Amino acid sequence: MRVRLTVAYNGAGFHGFAINPGVRTVGGVLGDAIGRYVGHPVELTCAGRTDAGVHARSQTIHFTTTGTDLEGLVKAVNRMCRPEIVVSEPAIVSEDFHARFSCVSRTYRYLILNQQVADPLQAHMSWHVNTPLDIDKMTEAAQYLVGTHDFSSFCRRPSPDTDLTRHVHRLDLWREQDNVVIEIEAKSFCHQMVRSIVALLTAIGTGKRPISAVKQALEAKNRDSVPSPAPPHGLTLHSTHYNPM
Amino acid sequence: MRVRLTVAYNGAGFHGFAINPGVRTVGGVLGDAIGRYVGHPVELTCAGRTDAGVHARSQTIHFTTTGTDLEGLVKAVNRMCRPEIVVSEPAIVSEDFHARFSCVSRTYRYLILNQQVADPLQAHMSWHVNTPLDIDKMTEAAQYLVGTHDFSSFCRRPSPDTDLTRHVHRLDLWREQDNVVIEIEAKSFCHQMVRSIVALLTAIGTGKRPISAVKQALEAKNRDSVPSPAPPHGLTLHSTHYNPM
Repeated sequence: MRVRLTVAYNGAGFHGFAINPGVRTVGGVLGDAIGRYVGHPVELTCAGRTDAGVHARSQTIHFTTTGTDLEGLVKAVNRMCRPEIVVSEPAIVSEDFHARFSCVSRTYRYLILNQQVADPLQAHMSWHVNTPLDIDKMTEAAQYLVGTHDFSSFCRRPSPDTDLTRHVHRLDLWREQDNVVIEIEAKSFCHQMVRSIVALLTAIGTGKRPISAVKQALEAKNRDSVPSPAPPHGLTLHSTHYNPM
Repeated sequence: MRVRLTVAYNGAGFHGFAINPGVRTVGGVLGDAIGRYVGHPVELTCAGRTDAGVHARSQTIHFTTTGTDLEGLVKAVNRMCRPEIVVSEPAIVSEDFHARFSCVSRTYRYLILNQQVADPLQAHMSWHVNTPLDIDKMTEAAQYLVGTHDFSSFCRRPSPDTDLTRHVHRLDLWREQDNVVIEIEAKSFCHQMVRSIVALLTAIGTGKRPISAVKQALEAKNRDSVPSPAPPHGLTLHSTHYNPM
């Protein structure tokens, strides 16, 4: 049978989700715990492979097992993995369900602490930018990224012929107390896309780059047109969306 | 000259504030960093000595030095101590100022994550209580604690003749998304007082104890009348208040 789980994690202690022998990954630790409970090795598939240091509030995974007690599985896995990894919402799904390919869109959130003084309690989950950000300028600039574009300037190209065209459904920004939240939803993302977008919008917010830098970057199709990606610890895979089965 | 600083810290990696040879404390790490910058050993005095695991958003300290560049001090100390400890608001104060004795009141906040599923990103700073809390009952019960009372049932008594009478200025509770926040302000607190109050109010919120348990505990003057203190990692010294100099 195929099982679906929602997974939240603090990415600080992990080299990303994807299993990578010799390094500690979310998929490795979680797969070991699930395997220990069901009594056989399992292969986990996730909606979005997060990078080293990136968090998840609602990642979705699936795996196949010969049979298990779902409630017991959740309790046992959480006992083994919390507080770094927490699983919830266990469900038996049809063999047609695929955590990655059935996912119709992903929403990422990036948190910027925008105040003079750093915050030790939030240091692991937000990027501290002490220059006041002009959120109106950032919002205006963000709208040029919504829709279908070639994101070559914003992504690492795994091979020369990879297509980096993506469709961004929405890109919203707002203040929440002393934080600026950037939320972006797309069917899929290419590598480092969200963090590069955040880096460029932040440079616009501090006045280092003009609003027109977004249009120029989209046209340039060259990574030099965008600042280095914002740090991973501000990024969270916030939610993953599926059609009702 | 006497220098005042505001200090924020993540208490997770420290055995409290007070210097304690052989263990890592906020006062020890911070005192070393300040001493290294000013070029001589310093003795730090704080508004409230927080316990192991307890955080601070706005602790106040003072120390005496032969002289220093305040802006340089803040930059250097933050470079050495961040992200766990962050200092700000440096000021030269008169010799009459005393971080502990001049402090007219302290405000503590306790954070309870009150939802079914734990949150890996907040695990270090909130107590996860998955039974829904009745905040109206807790608020009603809390009012019995405001004012001047003998808090013997809520505190560790350092010696048999210690007076555990304290004056609570206010005790407020509210929901903030999935959290319940408990904020309590008093001139001073005795040891484990806030965490014991939180434990009893939470037991009332889950229905394990009646509202009348607060009155009974105040009258009993016996620690057995109150549940074990709530865990330290939910507690933050939120602010410290001084009269204008």
